[in-house]
Amino acid sequence: MPFSNEGDRVGHDEIKTSRMGMSEDDFRNAANEMSEYIISYYKSLNGRQAIPSVTPGFLTDLLPKDPPNRPENWEKIFVDLEKVVMKGMTHWQSSNFFAYFPTGTSYPSILADMLSNAVSSVDLSWASSPISTEMEATVLGWLGQAIGLPDCFIHSKVGPGYGVIQGSASEATLMTLLAARSKTLSLLSNKYPEKSQYELLSKLVAYSSKYSHSSVERACLMGMVQLHKLPVDENISVTKKILEEAIKIDMENGKIPFYVCATLGTTSCVSFDDVSGIGEVCAENDIWLHVDAAYAGCSFVCQEFRHHMKGIEMASSFNCSPHKWLMVNTDCSVLWVKNNKDLLEAFKMQPEYARHPEDDITIDHRVNKGINVELLKRINQAKEIYLVPSEVEDVYFLRISVGTVACDENAIKNCWNVIQKHADLIFRNSLENGSM
Amino acid sequence: MPFSNEGDRVGHDEIKTSRMGMSEDDFRNAANEMSEYIISYYKSLNGRQAIPSVTPGFLTDLLPKDPPNRPENWEKIFVDLEKVVMKGMTHWQSSNFFAYFPTGTSYPSILADMLSNAVSSVDLSWASSPISTEMEATVLGWLGQAIGLPDCFIHSKVGPGYGVIQGSASEATLMTLLAARSKTLSLLSNKYPEKSQYELLSKLVAYSSKYSHSSVERACLMGMVQLHKLPVDENISVTKKILEEAIKIDMENGKIPFYVCATLGTTSCVSFDDVSGIGEVCAENDIWLHVDAAYAGCSFVCQEFRHHMKGIEMASSFNCSPHKWLMVNTDCSVLWVKNNKDLLEAFKMQPEYARHPEDDITIDHRVNKGINVELLKRINQAKEIYLVPSEVEDVYFLRISVGTVACDENAIKNCWNVIQKHADLIFRNSLENGSM
Repeated sequence: MPFSNEGDRVGHDEIKTSRMGMSEDDFRNAANEMSEYIISYYKSLNGRQAIPSVTPGFLTDLLPKDPPNRPENWEKIFVDLEKVVMKGMTHWQSSNFFAYFPTGTSYPSILADMLSNAVSSVDLSWASSPISTEMEATVLGWLGQAIGLPDCFIHSKVGPGYGVIQGSASEATLMTLLAARSKTLSLLSNKYPEKSQYELLSKLVAYSSKYSHSSVERACLMGMVQLHKLPVDENISVTKKILEEAIKIDMENGKIPFYVCATLGTTSCVSFDDVSGIGEVCAENDIWLHVDAAYAGCSFVCQEFRHHMKGIEMASSFNCSPHKWLMVNTDCSVLWVKNNKDLLEAFKMQPEYARHPEDDITIDHRVNKGINVELLKRINQAKEIYLVPSEVEDVYFLRISVGTVACDENAIKNCWNVIQKHADLIFRNSLENGSM
Repeated sequence: MPFSNEGDRVGHDEIKTSRMGMSEDDFRNAANEMSEYIISYYKSLNGRQAIPSVTPGFLTDLLPKDPPNRPENWEKIFVDLEKVVMKGMTHWQSSNFFAYFPTGTSYPSILADMLSNAVSSVDLSWASSPISTEMEATVLGWLGQAIGLPDCFIHSKVGPGYGVIQGSASEATLMTLLAARSKTLSLLSNKYPEKSQYELLSKLVAYSSKYSHSSVERACLMGMVQLHKLPVDENISVTKKILEEAIKIDMENGKIPFYVCATLGTTSCVSFDDVSGIGEVCAENDIWLHVDAAYAGCSFVCQEFRHHMKGIEMASSFNCSPHKWLMVNTDCSVLWVKNNKDLLEAFKMQPEYARHPEDDITIDHRVNKGINVELLKRINQAKEIYLVPSEVEDVYFLRISVGTVACDENAIKNCWNVIQKHADLIFRNSLENGSM
């Protein structure tokens, strides 16, 4: 039931839909047509301009301003892929594309995402999708080994290192900066209990090359910490000496260095900071060292490039983006941390500065909790249906969220029968045991 | 060239690969096989347990600890979809799945992502992918109209409202909280020039229902602002009176209210805050009102539910997640803001508190800039190749980023010839005009 791009031309065709938005046969044909289109797209790439000949606002004339009222046949939409979509496409996979940094993709990557989109799970915890959690841990362990990361970053090795997929290197920078901020403020609060979090925050300084990606500056902006942009040597590198001098001046002025972002492969000219030298300074001063290897990191699959990350074992965190060079489509950027707790602790709820005095006025007199906890446990153990609990105004209850497309009247009736069956069993047992 | 899941069983087969990771024929067959698998997966859903019978660590026995050294045939990998992947899958699309909130997907959504993954563009600016920028603006205008958002949020209407896709409602909350923080601090700095940003920050208070999603609390944690969790009335709603009382107490204690997150469809029990009443209080006190309708928002496609968002025109921002109820696969959560500048200003670089004194020591004596700017302009206008510029240590230059899989020796030679041709033309013109 895809949207039309010409609201007024629909309505004449009978459109077969299913709960999946189109019939199985239509999907079968359309998926086949799409695979052929992708194959021919790649064959045609050399003949296409890398950047399109359109000006801002070009789409206004091609699509209606108001949303379509009715669905449209796939065949009609398919025609618009070339006519509308490709008209305004910058072809990142073109051999004439030398802008920005490249992105990757591949047939296997497209196939994997078909399945991932079909199951459409949200991987918010182990239980919400065990395979996603464990596959991520395993494969990022593989990838870490493939690019030569030391064991301290690999989950299956010495621990507590861990790899986790992010949407972009910018997110990895933000997450590590906030984690470092949290860790530092926690240590400083113990050391200076008389000072407020905000006074301490005002002293923090982060460091990066003046050629680091703009996301470092943006992370500092979001984290409300000062950024000291470092000059570079003749190789456009930040060295041990450059960092040492900057830290010395800042500390003399009462500042507290807490985070350094070293870049392997700067956006301006693919220069490399001296991780080894920088790492020594960070270790000496108890500073979080994040290594942003968004661009160059995946090249470390090749042994001959690994000298660029000499000293990496001194880093607290490391990032590289398989969607650039490893033929995985966007978005797939990987963050490894040496100590997983540093990330978990930083984003745990309820640090003192986020607490309001009224939060503490809570009394535990929850209703029906003994029975409902047991009931939920039995239901989820039987695995006929899957529920999660909730609690509102001291009432603990079983929460039934209805809304999957597949959920019809029978599914609801079945859900109710399952709950009733287990509730009956609990009551019967209680009566037999004389506990009610 | 997908990875193997049993490193030791590969090496016996000849594996045909192409620049896209597998041959065209193999992709054609595999895509067909995958479509059939997805169709049969949906047919089999009723017969599958919604939650799998696995325990943490189950994958350790099924996959090798170390990365595979060689590629493996698709046929062998395909067998593992059922044997390994599905073994640990929580089936979010199952009719027996009543946990969390549902996610959506559909055949058209899977097809669209096949194309999106094939082009694998990064939509970082209009030029980097004109179709993505304009399609997003147009379709989010449609969606805003479809769910009954007032014109002030719709890009194509009165402006400067705008819709933008986020990965999750949590991101939308974080972005709006940080934008509100930035806007408020900027206003307060003008009003109290003698006070530091950090002193002002320490006074800020955000508000949300005690039943709001945990991402509100996490956003406050990241933004380092206090969160006042509000009690609710008998409908589990935050009302005008409840918010007014909380604000009064906080202001008496020298706090500065700056952000309210009202929820339409709480995670605990799908209750609705009183947006209309809350909106009046926010307007009166110049407070950013964000409406988190991640769950319920898409239901406003139906007129009969729109009474829940009465007063929405008073909100500064609104979020809903099409990946929950509109048959779009994850991740697709939409944020609309009434004034696009509020977002842009907040994340612009170089606010005072992120500046370091040394930043100001810059002298503009850039080398070769008159000529290289003109050369780049001509090259990109001719559209034979696509480059972006860079600048390092006062040298402005044309930056050639090599790394797309399609880029071979011929492509590099062609790139060089194009640059030389345009450079020659510029030099010839300059000589003819006597300007060199």
